[in-house]
Amino acid sequence: MRLVVINPNTTTEMTAVISAAARSVARADAEIIAVTSATGPESIESHYDEALAVPGVLDAITAHPDADGYLLACFGDPGLDAARELAVAPVLGIAEAAVHLAAPLGRGFSIVTTLSRTIGRARDLVSHYGFSDRCLGIHACEIPVLDLESNPDTEAILAKACAQALADDGSDAIVLGCAGMADLATRMSSQIGAPVVDGVAAGIGMLSAMAAMGLRTGTASGEFASPPPKRYTGVLHSWGIPG
Amino acid sequence: MRLVVINPNTTTEMTAVISAAARSVARADAEIIAVTSATGPESIESHYDEALAVPGVLDAITAHPDADGYLLACFGDPGLDAARELAVAPVLGIAEAAVHLAAPLGRGFSIVTTLSRTIGRARDLVSHYGFSDRCLGIHACEIPVLDLESNPDTEAILAKACAQALADDGSDAIVLGCAGMADLATRMSSQIGAPVVDGVAAGIGMLSAMAAMGLRTGTASGEFASPPPKRYTGVLHSWGIPG
Amino acid sequence: MRLVVINPNTTTEMTAVISAAARSVARADAEIIAVTSATGPESIESHYDEALAVPGVLDAITAHPDADGYLLACFGDPGLDAARELAVAPVLGIAEAAVHLAAPLGRGFSIVTTLSRTIGRARDLVSHYGFSDRCLGIHACEIPVLDLESNPDTEAILAKACAQALADDGSDAIVLGCAGMADLATRMSSQIGAPVVDGVAAGIGMLSAMAAMGLRTGTASGEFASPPPKRYTGVLHSWGIPG
Amino acid sequence: MRLVVINPNTTTEMTAVISAAARSVARADAEIIAVTSATGPESIESHYDEALAVPGVLDAITAHPDADGYLLACFGDPGLDAARELAVAPVLGIAEAAVHLAAPLGRGFSIVTTLSRTIGRARDLVSHYGFSDRCLGIHACEIPVLDLESNPDTEAILAKACAQALADDGSDAIVLGCAGMADLATRMSSQIGAPVVDGVAAGIGMLSAMAAMGLRTGTASGEFASPPPKRYTGVLHSWGIPG
Amino acid sequence: MRLVVINPNTTTEMTAVISAAARSVARADAEIIAVTSATGPESIESHYDEALAVPGVLDAITAHPDADGYLLACFGDPGLDAARELAVAPVLGIAEAAVHLAAPLGRGFSIVTTLSRTIGRARDLVSHYGFSDRCLGIHACEIPVLDLESNPDTEAILAKACAQALADDGSDAIVLGCAGMADLATRMSSQIGAPVVDGVAAGIGMLSAMAAMGLRTGTASGEFASPPPKRYTGVLHSWGIPG
Amino acid sequence: MRLVVINPNTTTEMTAVISAAARSVARADAEIIAVTSATGPESIESHYDEALAVPGVLDAITAHPDADGYLLACFGDPGLDAARELAVAPVLGIAEAAVHLAAPLGRGFSIVTTLSRTIGRARDLVSHYGFSDRCLGIHACEIPVLDLESNPDTEAILAKACAQALADDGSDAIVLGCAGMADLATRMSSQIGAPVVDGVAAGIGMLSAMAAMGLRTGTASGEFASPPPKRYTGVLHSWGIPG
Repeated sequence: MRLVVINPNTTTEMTAVISAAARSVARADAEIIAVTSATGPESIESHYDEALAVPGVLDAITAHPDADGYLLACFGDPGLDAARELAVAPVLGIAEAAVHLAAPLGRGFSIVTTLSRTIGRARDLVSHYGFSDRCLGIHACEIPVLDLESNPDTEAILAKACAQALADDGSDAIVLGCAGMADLATRMSSQIGAPVVDGVAAGIGMLSAMAAMGLRTGTASGEFASPPPKRYTGVLHSWGIPG
Repeated sequence: MRLVVINPNTTTEMTAVISAAARSVARADAEIIAVTSATGPESIESHYDEALAVPGVLDAITAHPDADGYLLACFGDPGLDAARELAVAPVLGIAEAAVHLAAPLGRGFSIVTTLSRTIGRARDLVSHYGFSDRCLGIHACEIPVLDLESNPDTEAILAKACAQALADDGSDAIVLGCAGMADLATRMSSQIGAPVVDGVAAGIGMLSAMAAMGLRTGTASGEFASPPPKRYTGVLHSWGIPG
Repeated sequence: MRLVVINPNTTTEMTAVISAAARSVARADAEIIAVTSATGPESIESHYDEALAVPGVLDAITAHPDADGYLLACFGDPGLDAARELAVAPVLGIAEAAVHLAAPLGRGFSIVTTLSRTIGRARDLVSHYGFSDRCLGIHACEIPVLDLESNPDTEAILAKACAQALADDGSDAIVLGCAGMADLATRMSSQIGAPVVDGVAAGIGMLSAMAAMGLRTGTASGEFASPPPKRYTGVLHSWGIPG
Repeated sequence: MRLVVINPNTTTEMTAVISAAARSVARADAEIIAVTSATGPESIESHYDEALAVPGVLDAITAHPDADGYLLACFGDPGLDAARELAVAPVLGIAEAAVHLAAPLGRGFSIVTTLSRTIGRARDLVSHYGFSDRCLGIHACEIPVLDLESNPDTEAILAKACAQALADDGSDAIVLGCAGMADLATRMSSQIGAPVVDGVAAGIGMLSAMAAMGLRTGTASGEFASPPPKRYTGVLHSWGIPG
Repeated sequence: MRLVVINPNTTTEMTAVISAAARSVARADAEIIAVTSATGPESIESHYDEALAVPGVLDAITAHPDADGYLLACFGDPGLDAARELAVAPVLGIAEAAVHLAAPLGRGFSIVTTLSRTIGRARDLVSHYGFSDRCLGIHACEIPVLDLESNPDTEAILAKACAQALADDGSDAIVLGCAGMADLATRMSSQIGAPVVDGVAAGIGMLSAMAAMGLRTGTASGEFASPPPKRYTGVLHSWGIPG
Repeated sequence: MRLVVINPNTTTEMTAVISAAARSVARADAEIIAVTSATGPESIESHYDEALAVPGVLDAITAHPDADGYLLACFGDPGLDAARELAVAPVLGIAEAAVHLAAPLGRGFSIVTTLSRTIGRARDLVSHYGFSDRCLGIHACEIPVLDLESNPDTEAILAKACAQALADDGSDAIVLGCAGMADLATRMSSQIGAPVVDGVAAGIGMLSAMAAMGLRTGTASGEFASPPPKRYTGVLHSWGIPG
């Protein structure tokens, strides 16, 4: 099975982290194709960045039409519904995948993300996916996305935030709220003594399950059928869909 | 007060319809500035179109920094959260405005939109804004957006769909689910004998109220503070925010 | 357009405050008619007061049949559903209007009201209107309604309560939970650096929008049709509706 | 134990029906005191009637201060929160009691009421009490309240509506939505072969349980403490509360 | 009327406490039959205990087929749905009964239970019965079930936990979260000055009401019809249902 | 990785179907251990059966302590919370797994199960897991569990029910509501042209993902810690937990 993992920002170092996390849990028969977005923000830390990462995400899907599954590796799940129209194979966002795998691990989970200004988006997604009762808190460690790798204290700060969230919220599990934390899940889990879910690994696991079952996005209601042909103009003219 | 109404698609004929609807309800002291998006789809009929309309919407806000309010005149409210970060003045989507004004008109309302594939997006927005219990049904008249003006039967088809929705759902009011229907609200209301809410007029009304009260988007929680400086690359490089 | 603002208590000084707030945001073409209830409590600070303010509210509507909109200027929105049956033009309560305008200003808002015993009513209304997820907290400043004007510390106490609510709840906006605070919104906003919504101004704004659009309460489902003729006896006999 | 049953309308024939239903299920040690409202509508069939029945309800409570429980015998539960402030003993509405006893009888119940215009009020109450998921439908038999006794076809029409509701909604139980139907519950149950809950009997049962347990309305949060002293003017001046 | 109260654990001392609580509130014409489970755990303090108490509960119902009501006297309401299929008369759990009687006593209630690990089950039940908005907190006093009687400090510890819950949650009433606390409700209420609801007494009260009204579990939807005949094997073979 | 799949009924033919479905999607490095319950009902078609299947399920977990994951292969997810206490590795029910994988396949899904009397249980689970908004309908094909294999018309009846559900509910995907249907998912999907999710395969997929990530049930809140030692008596005495 071929699974395409898309880094919605343009920073290739982060794609490497994501790719490694994906490969670490992949089935032996899975080919992981990691793609870096060709246009948009270098990191995603606002609704503005999130929205403007979408053209790059959709372009990456168009460029890889034959996959058995697509994973959008940013915790804001940018462009998920549009991606589902465009792709035939299933598409998941890493926030979506992470909360789907975290919920069955106990009574409730907490999310620990990067900057506090992104908490609102996480809350919207949690609600949209149906996990408002299971998500007992969303917290920020206040490390910017691109500093996660370079900041020597990332691991200590994040571990402290995870432990605090677990205790304050009465949670049984932690969800890491950024693709840039994908390499830290196992160490975090050891340090806090609780399951820690990274959405990249969770997404690969769920897509693998879907692919093994032969599942594709459903189009019966028409909502996720291919987008209708349309003329596009301006800098996005090449995103137009020929009739 | 200066109110900017943005048509998120690139079709200027539709901007004219929107502009007229906005002006028809504006206060005497309101200046209405109607803007057509400079890039993206000619009409919005899918999640794909919706997502790719956002760069044009944000660009239009950046180009008009001094307004007292912004209205996004597409019923998918594209880029609303991002627009709120970017603008200082309040921003509304027409779906948001329409349901806010329709709810107090009775027990519940129905939405009549263009194509059935857009119903899912409308449902998500209704839920997001808190009106799931008030919205008693969402229906499609199956006329594509750009045919609304040219199809000689639009008025008859739409009136029939509105009357049917009213009866089937037990609703007290109708919300029109497309900016391209903005010129039809009054006639629909006469034909079906029930209030019919157009989101463009509703949005101008709500923004006028906000502007008169001196209200601006709140930034205390940090979520809607200006987006942080960021380098953008590719075709969207000019959307980057200098540090 | 003629907009009738009803003070549901019998204190004319408070009607003056309400009237001034209404006029300060009204359109140039709007006539504001402020009415003081002729029977019931001098202020509304309990469910008991709230319920017994309703006959006076309904009487005021009957006495002013030709308006384009009615605003019930008490944060308990007393008699709202009954008023909608009685009036042809739209009716809003100030709690309803305030939360409708506050929600689009950010992620969430907090309410600051007078006495803590009224918090339950506010919570019920917020839930009824669909804003439970947007209202992040309801707080009391513990100043009785009729002391708001006379207490020299009102402004300082209220500003402190607003700032505290904003910080503790992580809100982006404040809603003032009493018509008697209508004159304080602008100063509160300046002091706390966040949008502060007064329901009287919000209600005038929303009614102006509705009136400009020609909207009336819908009667299609029958719920808000005129109340059926009925014989009334006792002190309320004159509220009876002739057949 | 002394239980006061208040008929919120002014029709004594209906009080007789209510009183008989109450007595038929009362404990041997229970004294049932049936009271007819002294002011307001002769029957309650609109929000307007509902609101204007409240002064009479509250007056009846004030006139009977020493009871162990109060039941408001109109399916709109008029003035319930105010009554709870005023009384020391517990207060229930018959809609409240009926849905509390119907829910444990199966997966879900349906309500069959008088006129369709009252369905909205029933829906609000069901939601307020927490039974939205249990109430599978609300239906009207379209017999006005005061015709229930005189209409020779009441029993047949109502039985048909109950059976239809049971089948269409997939319900396990029926709730009768009017105090004037209190004498019909047993016969309806026999005819449709399913449990039929009358709120008057349900309310007496729940109040008897509360009284036997020595329960009173809680005042710890302050919301249901006695209403504060207040000057009332106009026709309602005698409802004022001396300081 | 004959009411069967089942202690789902095997400890007869606890059955005595439950039986006394039941009798203390029963109608003069009620016969209370207290039954101790014949198989399973000596106390119920985990999901594991809860699940394994169910065969004993169902066996007790089969052994007492002619009752007018059944009460499951463990706060986890073990086997409630199965019991409803098996019995013709109504069945209640004490958690269910307690929250149904506590809700009308004020704005909201708090639950005080034994061990914190049982809080999750209580939360699930509260949500299932529709009282999520009314239950403002669930707290543990950390006294194991079988120590409630023997621990000389039970009353003091529990009173402190109840008072704390009332204050911290802003509640108007307390629900005791264990059948083993049934004898303490009145004293707790005196000590904290607020209504305290014991589920055993509440359950007897509600069942008495149902029995007086002639109510039985509804089977119209089929869900609660008698379980179909089935062959059982292993240690549970005698639970099988002959065809 | 070792994954234990437990058939909660005692019918070995059904275990064979389940086992084959599990193996068909398993990773190359996964060992599937299929276990048939040793006590309880031969099939599960009522709340009574569901509850009495739990001792056998828990016994099977105790007998296989070293797995990396457990799947409860009955659509009622019997004993799930208890199983999570007992096992160290993650535990999923097939209803849980199926809805988790079905939700991301479109706007909403429908469930098609065996007998209509089991619909209530399915609805409870869907709500408990957070998917009430995504599950657009639950339908029965009215084939008893043990007839699924022998009835020559099973495939045709089920396909018709699935197609009908898809159309009536406006769904994008179908969830099969019984482990005994596990071998039919692929053929159903071909016949109706929409994704069809079998919970056995879905569960193996999700457990494989969890195992690859090293996830275990969280015990930080204490709810899912090992059940405390306890003396059990009667036929279930061997289920007791030594201190």
